[in-house]
Amino acid sequence: MTRTGRTGLWLVGAGGSVASTVVAGLAAMRVGAAGPGGVVTETSAFAGAGLVDTADLVTGGHDVHEVSLTKRVEDLATAGVVPHDLARLVAADLDAASERVRPGYAVGAEDQGAAVRRLAEDLRDFREREGLDRVVVVNVSSTEPPVDAAEVPADVAALEAAWSRGEAPLPPSSVYAAAAFTAGCAFVDFTPSTGARLPVLGELAARAGLPWGGSDGKTGETLLKSVLAPMFAQRALRVHSWSGTNLLGGGDGATLARPDAFESKARSKAAGVGAMLGYPVEGPIHIDNVADLGDWKTAWDHITFSGFLGTRMTLQFTWQGCDSALAAPLVVDLARLLDLAMQREESGAVPALGFFFKDPVGSDEHALAAQYDALLRWVRGEGWTGR
Amino acid sequence: MTRTGRTGLWLVGAGGSVASTVVAGLAAMRVGAAGPGGVVTETSAFAGAGLVDTADLVTGGHDVHEVSLTKRVEDLATAGVVPHDLARLVAADLDAASERVRPGYAVGAEDQGAAVRRLAEDLRDFREREGLDRVVVVNVSSTEPPVDAAEVPADVAALEAAWSRGEAPLPPSSVYAAAAFTAGCAFVDFTPSTGARLPVLGELAARAGLPWGGSDGKTGETLLKSVLAPMFAQRALRVHSWSGTNLLGGGDGATLARPDAFESKARSKAAGVGAMLGYPVEGPIHIDNVADLGDWKTAWDHITFSGFLGTRMTLQFTWQGCDSALAAPLVVDLARLLDLAMQREESGAVPALGFFFKDPVGSDEHALAAQYDALLRWVRGEGWTGR
Amino acid sequence: MTRTGRTGLWLVGAGGSVASTVVAGLAAMRVGAAGPGGVVTETSAFAGAGLVDTADLVTGGHDVHEVSLTKRVEDLATAGVVPHDLARLVAADLDAASERVRPGYAVGAEDQGAAVRRLAEDLRDFREREGLDRVVVVNVSSTEPPVDAAEVPADVAALEAAWSRGEAPLPPSSVYAAAAFTAGCAFVDFTPSTGARLPVLGELAARAGLPWGGSDGKTGETLLKSVLAPMFAQRALRVHSWSGTNLLGGGDGATLARPDAFESKARSKAAGVGAMLGYPVEGPIHIDNVADLGDWKTAWDHITFSGFLGTRMTLQFTWQGCDSALAAPLVVDLARLLDLAMQREESGAVPALGFFFKDPVGSDEHALAAQYDALLRWVRGEGWTGR
Amino acid sequence: MTRTGRTGLWLVGAGGSVASTVVAGLAAMRVGAAGPGGVVTETSAFAGAGLVDTADLVTGGHDVHEVSLTKRVEDLATAGVVPHDLARLVAADLDAASERVRPGYAVGAEDQGAAVRRLAEDLRDFREREGLDRVVVVNVSSTEPPVDAAEVPADVAALEAAWSRGEAPLPPSSVYAAAAFTAGCAFVDFTPSTGARLPVLGELAARAGLPWGGSDGKTGETLLKSVLAPMFAQRALRVHSWSGTNLLGGGDGATLARPDAFESKARSKAAGVGAMLGYPVEGPIHIDNVADLGDWKTAWDHITFSGFLGTRMTLQFTWQGCDSALAAPLVVDLARLLDLAMQREESGAVPALGFFFKDPVGSDEHALAAQYDALLRWVRGEGWTGR
Ligand SMILES: NC(=O)c1ccc[n+]([C@@H]2O[C@H](COP(=O)([O-])OP(=O)(O)OC[C@H]3O[C@@H](n4cnc5c(N)ncnc54)[C@H](O)[C@@H]3O)[C@@H](O)[C@H]2O)c1
Ligand SMILES: NC(=O)c1ccc[n+]([C@@H]2O[C@H](COP(=O)([O-])OP(=O)(O)OC[C@H]3O[C@@H](n4cnc5c(N)ncnc54)[C@H](O)[C@@H]3O)[C@@H](O)[C@H]2O)c1
Ligand SMILES: NC(=O)c1ccc[n+]([C@@H]2O[C@H](COP(=O)([O-])OP(=O)(O)OC[C@H]3O[C@@H](n4cnc5c(N)ncnc54)[C@H](O)[C@@H]3O)[C@@H](O)[C@H]2O)c1
Ligand SMILES: NC(=O)c1ccc[n+]([C@@H]2O[C@H](COP(=O)([O-])OP(=O)(O)OC[C@H]3O[C@@H](n4cnc5c(N)ncnc54)[C@H](O)[C@@H]3O)[C@@H](O)[C@H]2O)c1
Ligand code: NA
Ligand code: NA
Repeated sequence: MTRTGRTGLWLVGAGGSVASTVVAGLAAMRVGAAGPGGVVTETSAFAGAGLVDTADLVTGGHDVHEVSLTKRVEDLATAGVVPHDLARLVAADLDAASERVRPGYAVGAEDQGAAVRRLAEDLRDFREREGLDRVVVVNVSSTEPPVDAAEVPADVAALEAAWSRGEAPLPPSSVYAAAAFTAGCAFVDFTPSTGARLPVLGELAARAGLPWGGSDGKTGETLLKSVLAPMFAQRALRVHSWSGTNLLGGGDGATLARPDAFESKARSKAAGVGAMLGYPVEGPIHIDNVADLGDWKTAWDHITFSGFLGTRMTLQFTWQGCDSALAAPLVVDLARLLDLAMQREESGAVPALGFFFKDPVGSDEHALAAQYDALLRWVRGEGWTGR
Repeated sequence: MTRTGRTGLWLVGAGGSVASTVVAGLAAMRVGAAGPGGVVTETSAFAGAGLVDTADLVTGGHDVHEVSLTKRVEDLATAGVVPHDLARLVAADLDAASERVRPGYAVGAEDQGAAVRRLAEDLRDFREREGLDRVVVVNVSSTEPPVDAAEVPADVAALEAAWSRGEAPLPPSSVYAAAAFTAGCAFVDFTPSTGARLPVLGELAARAGLPWGGSDGKTGETLLKSVLAPMFAQRALRVHSWSGTNLLGGGDGATLARPDAFESKARSKAAGVGAMLGYPVEGPIHIDNVADLGDWKTAWDHITFSGFLGTRMTLQFTWQGCDSALAAPLVVDLARLLDLAMQREESGAVPALGFFFKDPVGSDEHALAAQYDALLRWVRGEGWTGR
Repeated sequence: MTRTGRTGLWLVGAGGSVASTVVAGLAAMRVGAAGPGGVVTETSAFAGAGLVDTADLVTGGHDVHEVSLTKRVEDLATAGVVPHDLARLVAADLDAASERVRPGYAVGAEDQGAAVRRLAEDLRDFREREGLDRVVVVNVSSTEPPVDAAEVPADVAALEAAWSRGEAPLPPSSVYAAAAFTAGCAFVDFTPSTGARLPVLGELAARAGLPWGGSDGKTGETLLKSVLAPMFAQRALRVHSWSGTNLLGGGDGATLARPDAFESKARSKAAGVGAMLGYPVEGPIHIDNVADLGDWKTAWDHITFSGFLGTRMTLQFTWQGCDSALAAPLVVDLARLLDLAMQREESGAVPALGFFFKDPVGSDEHALAAQYDALLRWVRGEGWTGR
Repeated sequence: MTRTGRTGLWLVGAGGSVASTVVAGLAAMRVGAAGPGGVVTETSAFAGAGLVDTADLVTGGHDVHEVSLTKRVEDLATAGVVPHDLARLVAADLDAASERVRPGYAVGAEDQGAAVRRLAEDLRDFREREGLDRVVVVNVSSTEPPVDAAEVPADVAALEAAWSRGEAPLPPSSVYAAAAFTAGCAFVDFTPSTGARLPVLGELAARAGLPWGGSDGKTGETLLKSVLAPMFAQRALRVHSWSGTNLLGGGDGATLARPDAFESKARSKAAGVGAMLGYPVEGPIHIDNVADLGDWKTAWDHITFSGFLGTRMTLQFTWQGCDSALAAPLVVDLARLLDLAMQREESGAVPALGFFFKDPVGSDEHALAAQYDALLRWVRGEGWTGR
């Protein structure tokens, strides 16, 4: 197999649980302390697709807080998210990766136009110093509140005019997307934040001929919905209610306890069931901060449905997943797949990545099996442009 | 839409829960007292496929016990399986259908060769009296113990020789299959019994140019496995254990409490998970007779799996399904689809029906989404020959 | 056993699900169509305690809507709450009971002082017409928002002064309590509304020498908490989080979807766990209106706890209870027990009834086993004055 | 508080999961690395009862396999049963405790009469070397098959005669009980094995004036039954079925996968529900060996019940407990409580310890709350002789 060179994986929110698990996990794979469990692109279906080796992914990132990956990984070990001796095993790698984290952008702390230029410079610098062929920026920072797209300048000229007036029209996730496109990097939003989903960002990506993807990694309750809802539909079983409660702690739990951030996540989570079934379904969706659970998200879903002669039945499930352990390998997948898109010089949103997301850009397909087929077709170069 | 004529649906085990629900449900649909909930072939994906109207299905059947469908449907209503006024609403239809039930075949009660001829005569008689174009025989009788195929005559000549010696080498389900093929009818086994799955039955079907399908309707725990196992596989999540407990009462619960009958069901249920994941998985499968539950099967499955860095997680679900309400519409589907196969003059096992079965004949594909695609392709005449 | 005479059971909210189930159930017991399932005071522990026969309970009530109990009981049958032929079996009783329902009191519809007199007159009239020895008023009407006790007149003189100024300082549940005490009846609040829990109502009860009880029937999730929390405490297992989700439809579900009514229920539900464990525990409590579930409340609770060496463990349960079928027999129990208190000429709050309530008046004891012991001691005349 | 001296805790099965957790946990408490979580006798209700300090418990034991407690504790740490640095923190204690483990007794390996004398000598030697006031022997070795009591000599004379003929009439657990009584030690059976529950052992205990207790620690599913069944009974809710599935791995899981050992456990588990409800209840009880789960026992129970008017409802729970972390503190409790019984010179079975057991000797009381009250009364010297 020919080597495809070295690729940068730039993590926005580099000190968070997901990012730390990505860095520690890549290091563990490198030293043979971990296998490729959970990494979709390491399964045989992706062999020969020309993806960059996981060993050739180099990480860096932005965060608004001081980052000691060693400390974070030790905490993750105490919580049972990663093996308890991992921080020790990959200590050198964690130190080196911590060095490659730069100060992030926070609302109000800095002129926004200047911030985009500064962040873009960090990315160029990373690419050059590390001798990278390409860089993929993945947003794994704290979920932001939703923005009103109508209040954001609709094109690049208007955006630059706003910046020159000292305004800060973009939310942080979009600032990072703008910096990525400015520096010639692909961008993926693993969170439900706005990211590249604004016309003006689309214009920036198009001008630079860069691919991007999102939004909001599909790792738990929504993953299950994406196989169960099609099952009900294909079996002609009518779903009457679908109620969900998600309990989690950690940084993500604390963030989503804020009503405005919750709003972004709830919208993203709600996207799929109605689309998969073809009709709206009642039922609450809760996301609750239970500090004691840490990264161990527990989701309980309760579904009522009927079959022949209207007979009522129920399905309920409890998912006890470790969020970062589920998310991190998908971040690795997305880095490799966006890197492939860059190799192929694809530009714009990549709907074929819907397999990874709660709220897939450019696609209304939420059924996992169909998304998997679409992903494989795209990887094989057969193209897919969303349903 | 051109009418495709009237088709017979012959139910072996005509007095059982599933059969009674089929008969009552078809009658309810006819008088507008029930919609097509749970009937897969009534969804839009099957429109225009040339399937016989459900209103043009005429039922009859065999049972070894006296059958009063009115009584059975009243009992099902008391148990909440069907609406409580259904027996009253479709009383005339139930009486008429009860009249069309003939005495079945029980081991030892009758010469086996003569029995096959008698049962075949019942089928021909049914077709003629009712003026039917085609007849599909569906086995929904009590689950039998497994047989040792090596002890059954391997070809028709040997089978007839055994019969002429007064032997009874076939289990009852295979006797019904033999009668179906002898009388020019298609055959489907909705149970895990042997049915047509013997070389000698294959020969009988081939000679007569008749299609057949099976085995064991996929209505509950196994249905869920067929979407969850592919999810784990596609997401590269390693499954470590999959334990299942099924509680049910009713006739089926009582039958499966017998170790030999349980053996057939357990084999059938175990078929899929390993095939879908690509490796064997530990964990018990229990089927318990809890009389109090009646037809309300409750299944609890507990699954342990790991992702990135080996982190352990669990999924568990509880399925509370009404078995007959889930099974009956699929029996209607199978009658319509085998009728289509007969219209098309297909012969032999039909692997494209795997979507309906725990242990699909002629196929190793257990993933529901793939089975659904295969079914649609076959219905559209694009063919599919199993994986 | 000597007869204790006939007692009136006056239901505030007489047309609701709980009240209708009480009336239909008493009638069914009378005609032998139902046994005493769920009625605590019919178990052997209460034999010989001098309780009024259930056959000697005569019902009547108030509601703000027109009430046809026959119609309500038919609807409950369709929903599976009561047997499907019940309305027919006890038709005469339901008609007679419907006749004994009088117009209720709604905020703003009537002068409040006059309303209390009118409602009290209805109660006296009921007692006389039916030749009753005693009357117990039980509030099973829709849950009200909480009130600020500081804004309600603190004594009877002040209350009457406010009424004479045309003011309406009491919430409806307290208006009914005032009417009960005015007419010489005992009062029980089966809801989390204010009821008799105001100093001025206490004064009215004391003056009249009448017993009263409450609040909020303990029928589901809270019932389970009252046995599980003591288990954790007695076993020295530390509870770290206790999260609960309650899904229900029906009138109660719709009412509790209103944030102000929810507030009353949430306060009542939250009362116990901390008291039983001796320390506060984090975790959300949700009550969601899922119309499809009707009276079938489904509660899921998730509890994390630790034992020796801090090892973390979890317990979760799903309770699928039919709310009215659980509540109605307890209303019958409370009528009999308050009747006993009246026979004994007890006056004031009865803390020994805490067994029945989420938020027991006059007691901090929430553990079911201790409450049961206290109840039995009180019934046997050994007295108990709360913990 | 006056010191009550030093007491020996002799563990039969000293190298097993439970025993290792006991030893490591006592050491951790001593060095302040763990609190008293899960130790019932450390709660305030037991203050002042004259129990030996946990710091004054000295461990020793028998096992048939070579025992390295350090190794065992490291394995338990990897499995998440104990904190991951525990083996290091208490390394010296573990080494010392390993030294105090002596070779156990296995069927057929040794003359049984001689074995009893050898084991008793080990106990006397332990008491003297360590300067202990008293010694309590607790059986936490692998569960044995049940024995037919009729085939065991009924009195000591007959037993000694059998021994002198070279026979081995006692199962190993009873051999240990005999050795305990011979050496003047109390005995507790934490397993469902026979232990002291034979007339001849009763005679040995009585002669020596020694107390004993059992059987089978109540740590999971049965613990929950002991609070839920009384709840149903007190609320007059009729239980129709109670089905249970227990999944576990580890040494205990492997042992219970053997049908004969399972038989002992199943009898012990089945004892309670019928006794608490007052009528028999249908439903299977499974114990399955799922190696992947290790010590993390997962139990799912499904209960159907009815209330007023026969309405059917269900409760289900999933308990995910760490068996050794639940069992170990109870072993500490039992050592302290039997030590108290010895201080008080009580002799014979102690029914007041039923709180700790699935199958309490000398008592039919299975309800946890009643058992707790009985335990406290006994500890306070108020006596209790079983129900
Ligand atoms: N773990 C999953 O399964 C999963 C699934 C889907 C989406 N997500 C999303 O991934 C994100 C990360 O999750 P997590 O558990 O790692 O959260 P976390 O709270 O542990 O980490 C978030 C990190 O982002 C940093 N951050 C905040 N604002 C920033 C800014 N303006 N610029 C740069 N960095 C900033 C924080 O300092 C923190 O280090 C969340 O938005 C979450 O919703 C996670
Ligand atoms: N309901 C489901 O979801 C489902 C799913 C898959 C398979 N199945 C299978 O369908 C079958 C029927 O289930 P059910 O619940 O209706 O069972 P049931 O016990 O109610 O009915 C079985 C009927 O078969 C009759 N019968 C027994 N032996 C016969 C014979 N030799 N010839 C003719 N009739 C005979 C019995 O008299 C009875 O009327 C079972 O084998 C079951 O395992 C059901
Ligand atoms: N069912 C249970 O398990 C349970 C447990 C605890 C408490 N409760 C409480 O019992 C009450 C009744 O529950 P339900 O399910 O019968 O509710 P429901 O909505 O079916 O019935 C409430 C009835 O109260 C009537 N009402 C409303 N305002 C009134 C007023 N001012 N005066 C007289 N009548 C009035 C309504 O018209 C309706 O008929 C609720 O407050 C509920 O929270 C029920
Ligand atoms: N952990 C719980 O929650 C719990 C609850 C109730 C009962 N129990 C019982 O406690 C016992 C111990 O459980 P565990 O998980 O520690 O099991 P384990 O398999 O880890 O340990 C059993 C130990 O007993 C030893 N052993 C076997 N035969 C022996 C003999 N004849 N003499 C001396 N030692 C012998 C084995 O070598 C092993 O070291 C089991 O019988 C189990 O059923 C455990
Ligand atoms: Na197959
Ligand atoms: Na006992």
